[in-house]
Amino acid sequence: MSLRKYDILIIGSGPAGFSAAVRASQLGVKRIALIEKDLIGGTCLNCGCIPTKFLWLSLKTKLKIQKSYEYGIKAVLDTIDFVDVIKKKDKDIENIRKGMKLTLLAHSIDIINGIALFKNKNTIIVSDLNNDRKIEILTNKIIIATGTNPSIIEEFNFNNNNIINSTDILNLKKIPKNMLIVGGGAIGIEMATIFSGFGCRITLIEKENHLLQYEDFEISEQIRKNLVIQGVEVLTSYTKMHDIINKYEKILVVTGRAPNNILKFENVGIKTSEKGFIKTNDFYQTNISNIYAVGDIIGENLFAYTAQNDGIKAAENAVNGNLIQINRKKYIVPKVVFAMPQIASVKVNNFFEYKNLIIGKSSFSSNSRAFIEKERAGFAKCAIDIVTKKPIAFWIIGAHSDELINIASQILKNNITYISRETIFHPSFSEILLNAYEDAINKTIYKNKKDRCNNL
Amino acid sequence: MSLRKYDILIIGSGPAGFSAAVRASQLGVKRIALIEKDLIGGTCLNCGCIPTKFLWLSLKTKLKIQKSYEYGIKAVLDTIDFVDVIKKKDKDIENIRKGMKLTLLAHSIDIINGIALFKNKNTIIVSDLNNDRKIEILTNKIIIATGTNPSIIEEFNFNNNNIINSTDILNLKKIPKNMLIVGGGAIGIEMATIFSGFGCRITLIEKENHLLQYEDFEISEQIRKNLVIQGVEVLTSYTKMHDIINKYEKILVVTGRAPNNILKFENVGIKTSEKGFIKTNDFYQTNISNIYAVGDIIGENLFAYTAQNDGIKAAENAVNGNLIQINRKKYIVPKVVFAMPQIASVKVNNFFEYKNLIIGKSSFSSNSRAFIEKERAGFAKCAIDIVTKKPIAFWIIGAHSDELINIASQILKNNITYISRETIFHPSFSEILLNAYEDAINKTIYKNKKDRCNNL
Repeated sequence: MSLRKYDILIIGSGPAGFSAAVRASQLGVKRIALIEKDLIGGTCLNCGCIPTKFLWLSLKTKLKIQKSYEYGIKAVLDTIDFVDVIKKKDKDIENIRKGMKLTLLAHSIDIINGIALFKNKNTIIVSDLNNDRKIEILTNKIIIATGTNPSIIEEFNFNNNNIINSTDILNLKKIPKNMLIVGGGAIGIEMATIFSGFGCRITLIEKENHLLQYEDFEISEQIRKNLVIQGVEVLTSYTKMHDIINKYEKILVVTGRAPNNILKFENVGIKTSEKGFIKTNDFYQTNISNIYAVGDIIGENLFAYTAQNDGIKAAENAVNGNLIQINRKKYIVPKVVFAMPQIASVKVNNFFEYKNLIIGKSSFSSNSRAFIEKERAGFAKCAIDIVTKKPIAFWIIGAHSDELINIASQILKNNITYISRETIFHPSFSEILLNAYEDAINKTIYKNKKDRCNNL
Repeated sequence: MSLRKYDILIIGSGPAGFSAAVRASQLGVKRIALIEKDLIGGTCLNCGCIPTKFLWLSLKTKLKIQKSYEYGIKAVLDTIDFVDVIKKKDKDIENIRKGMKLTLLAHSIDIINGIALFKNKNTIIVSDLNNDRKIEILTNKIIIATGTNPSIIEEFNFNNNNIINSTDILNLKKIPKNMLIVGGGAIGIEMATIFSGFGCRITLIEKENHLLQYEDFEISEQIRKNLVIQGVEVLTSYTKMHDIINKYEKILVVTGRAPNNILKFENVGIKTSEKGFIKTNDFYQTNISNIYAVGDIIGENLFAYTAQNDGIKAAENAVNGNLIQINRKKYIVPKVVFAMPQIASVKVNNFFEYKNLIIGKSSFSSNSRAFIEKERAGFAKCAIDIVTKKPIAFWIIGAHSDELINIASQILKNNITYISRETIFHPSFSEILLNAYEDAINKTIYKNKKDRCNNL
């Protein structure tokens, strides 16, 4: 078994691990290795954000072409060859992956392909995928960024050809005639949207009484309605899976994600939560002082952007000593679900402590940009504190909400108490946030009868 | 001549006048009239923002269809019938106008169609367009929102059929074979983009040495390059119009906008600037205390969104007394030009006082959302103050910059000193602002060789 020595070893090349490796190099660390058991880029690039958004964009392109006559532009759509869609997706992903590899090489980071296993707190054994070649790596610091895998639930056996998870579905070679989706969270909704859009008859089941159970009820109801209009059968409070399971060509199980502990944290005594996520302090440090953990493996927010932030900050702490303290409970993180149209929301971290809120609302149909861009479906809501009148939450269901929500998150993150009209370009979709906010403070000039709020 | 009495009279129904009228009504004013000599909605709706964006979106739709195969979606584009494009545009505008009228009626605002003329500071004479019916209106307060008209320059006579202005061009029934555009400002660039995109051979001439003369030089150069790639002939430092004027089917003159003084401000002694824009104090009040002025007619920022803001604030001051003081010189206003791709920028108001800046830059090609959305052209730049590291300006040339710039304007408006990665959704175009900013503070992990700045 060969032996190598590094200053910092990072395990996992997703957004967290990648950022940590690049940042460590930028800070002057000479010997850095990044271990990846699979493809560079992790869940986000290979089986998460990027492929999902590609397929969503592909569907959106189809829908836009079908509506292009509204601009006086006529076009005839060909039959869609789904194999070609998947090929195009894979090509984009491959190109992004090449870019990431070039960045890693430019920063003199060794990429090691293999499965890592803890020997002790300074030693990792890496075996290749066939387990017939091993190397032992001695390292000063370790940053764990091993992420998560799709959760397995007892009723289902993923080895069965027709029972698939969120990774498998992104590589289907043809659209199934019908599919049962188990789980009405973000991934279930996105897959229902995409695959029903490409012609698959979908039944989406959720055991709770509404979709996206942690989301505002009015938004959740609107998502359900939109899915139904798109032809998806949505069954909430549904638990009798076994009654219907045999009726579907494919069954997609998307009931959550579980931490990936292929490293065997227990070998070095790393403390984890009950669910197996690594516990860290405010410096991303585990209970073993030379070992840091970042990204999905530490739980809380399973998002690429929080993971990137983790990776950068943890690398700085690992290299320079614990100078950057982060209270992740105070994070203000926008959340987006790629239904059609998209849904986005962001709240102040202590949102649920506010008892007295005023909610303002504005429809996309009264936004002139949305009107001429033929994206008239949806609405935005803004919650303000009744005392200070300060915005404390935004919800948007409508086109471009995945970009607009970043305006809202700057407003909340920075305690902005007043949004000035001259700071928002007209005609833009962004104005919907302003109008919802002005409605909350009772100053909107764009009130529409439809803009009545249901309960939060 | 019939006589009517009102509490507030608003002249002009563009964004400024419309907002003022609605807000006055919301504040409880009973007798409000809005005088409009033409179509409700003013320049913005009828011959400015909205029709321009419609045509741009129509072109964008065509371009998207031509590239849809990159998503595995194949479509065949029909020959474009420009008459149909214009019809569709007019229908959308008409619908928005209907919405505005309904809003005005819902607020019990009288709409009076006719030409207003000052008799004295409390009396306006309104004649219908044929000047054969007149009414005299007595009013307590007046809000002037008469806006601007295309500037006339001596060399050109707009009555000539082939010499047209920015209003005429939006109603052409067919795409000219070729067109000379005189003026390389925002409107000239937008029209060159749209009409060359629809097949017109365009020559764009500008007397200054670069396009968009008040813009960052690198951005301006990139716009020029993009126009040239799109087939537009761009001639800067060009003054010999007469040499080439006869070579073109149409000549579009877009050299600026001049205040509309059909009211005859001089009849009541309203003070104006040398160029004829009305002078107001920080309460939107003219030198005649019962007369306020808002929107383009007061100069400074000729934008719909500043006009809306003016209208709302001036109405509050006119109704409740001067409680809202505005220093328009301190406005932070995003600016957008709909080239292909769009260009947007925003600066702190004292930007040119900063002597020591650091500029960060980030390319759309290294933004993974832009990559999969096939919008890889362009870049963003962020200027920070060398001492405080605070962002003080952003420039974006690229897709969706008209929405992204609103994030930047919130950052500048609220003196935000640090942008946190977890507040920006991934994968989004918005991340480009974060990456340009992180490049400026020397903390980016997404540096690309292309991301070198030219001089500011």
